[in-house]
Amino acid sequence: MYKIIDGKNIAAELRRIIKGEVEQIKTERGISPKLVVVLVGDDAASQIYVRNKERACAEVGILSEVQRIPSTIKESELIEQVRSLNNNKNIHGILVQLPLPKHLNEIGVLNEISPDKDVDGLHPLNMGKLLKGEDTKFIPCTAAGIMELILSTGVELMGKEAVVVGRSNIVGKPTAILLLKKHATVTICHSRTRDLGEVTRRAEVLIAAVGRPAIIKENMVKDGAIIIDVGMNRLGEKLVGDVDYELVKNKASFITPVPGGVGPMTIAMLLKNTLLAVKQKTD
Amino acid sequence: MYKIIDGKNIAAELRRIIKGEVEQIKTERGISPKLVVVLVGDDAASQIYVRNKERACAEVGILSEVQRIPSTIKESELIEQVRSLNNNKNIHGILVQLPLPKHLNEIGVLNEISPDKDVDGLHPLNMGKLLKGEDTKFIPCTAAGIMELILSTGVELMGKEAVVVGRSNIVGKPTAILLLKKHATVTICHSRTRDLGEVTRRAEVLIAAVGRPAIIKENMVKDGAIIIDVGMNRLGEKLVGDVDYELVKNKASFITPVPGGVGPMTIAMLLKNTLLAVKQKTD
Repeated sequence: MYKIIDGKNIAAELRRIIKGEVEQIKTERGISPKLVVVLVGDDAASQIYVRNKERACAEVGILSEVQRIPSTIKESELIEQVRSLNNNKNIHGILVQLPLPKHLNEIGVLNEISPDKDVDGLHPLNMGKLLKGEDTKFIPCTAAGIMELILSTGVELMGKEAVVVGRSNIVGKPTAILLLKKHATVTICHSRTRDLGEVTRRAEVLIAAVGRPAIIKENMVKDGAIIIDVGMNRLGEKLVGDVDYELVKNKASFITPVPGGVGPMTIAMLLKNTLLAVKQKTD
Repeated sequence: MYKIIDGKNIAAELRRIIKGEVEQIKTERGISPKLVVVLVGDDAASQIYVRNKERACAEVGILSEVQRIPSTIKESELIEQVRSLNNNKNIHGILVQLPLPKHLNEIGVLNEISPDKDVDGLHPLNMGKLLKGEDTKFIPCTAAGIMELILSTGVELMGKEAVVVGRSNIVGKPTAILLLKKHATVTICHSRTRDLGEVTRRAEVLIAAVGRPAIIKENMVKDGAIIIDVGMNRLGEKLVGDVDYELVKNKASFITPVPGGVGPMTIAMLLKNTLLAVKQKTD
């Protein structure tokens, strides 16, 4: 019988803890943690994501400010804007909402964010430290959230076969690194993998981060696997994951639902990273 | 029938090309490419490695200087030394030979090397760019050399199952990233992998980078695999790899010998990185 990994509950508990720490920092150090989200253009999905982030910040007492910038901004101006946020001592976390309008070079802009305020954890310096196993302030939020969900099962990862489907910088790659650090044997699959099912059937821990509805079928899953579904695919009104949940769940030992699995954890980890940005600030 | 991947020859050809480019840079831009190797203490193996690097530089016309520093140096002094090399415009590549004496923090020292002169490619900023697939000046030398050897076989990597045994920052991790970039399905194994043979038997491309003599046995290898042996283990007078070569070779399609496989490639890639450091210099 499978157990549901309740991301919604685990994220709520995390937010409760974060809220307490934010209050403590306010009273003891007189600092009000603050996150600035830079939103360029009017992408509809981005508007929703940003609103969710604002709400989550408010709930735990983190100040948030959304800088809405017209899509006509020049890259050099956007970079200037990021630099001025870097230099502002009252701002602890900076997040540039993706995707950026096509005429702006994402790498060029993101790499301008100070690694000390990079609460998304996507600056190459922070990603490089993560890869090397050096102390890094910030772990990319979704990957960090996935690890919390796996750890909540109490299952020991050492020596387990873990398979990550998807090799994005935001999810696949950092998740693979974190699983490796926990001593799992880690395989990364992707669109060019010859026989995806052959690989996923080996997985004692399976992370599906592809972005295609129900691509992971019942016959692609090992009995007793822990299954983490990162997919958030809109099918009409419905939000569905990358896992064919109704059929797959009966083979799993633990499985995350969509919604209510990874999604809430990503935002909780953003709050945690913002808090970390304050905590590790020495001045 | 297996074919030997002749790293010695491939490296010699690379050095020939590099030598031509060094000459061109000298005549056209009036720049003499220069590598500085910082050697702290008197580790016997390091002395040999450094001498080999000096010889290779001389062969292709790259200036090299070995700064021999007593093991009693303070960390702060060593860092000052690295910074002064960073600021010296006549020096293009900086390499701090590892291991450092125990009282010195390797991470603290290595991370001081300017990412623009980091010819070992181990600075977290360069490793992070490698991980993210961003343009990076420098790829860690052994990993880059391994890829050249694989590409020399003419075998297409896309969709192949590649297994990397070993998860070091110098070899295992960057090699896994490079294989992933070439669209292989990549698995990373290590000392905590439950059944190493079970995993390595899946490998159509197998990279052994463990540092234990002949740990990869005949029954752990798939028929027709490409086998890259990164091991350099000293058994008395003899240098042996991580692969049980005499028995394994008959199952392989391509295999690297030890010595004469990966070893010469690492140094050739160091030369290539030093040349790159000059080429990408804009001033």
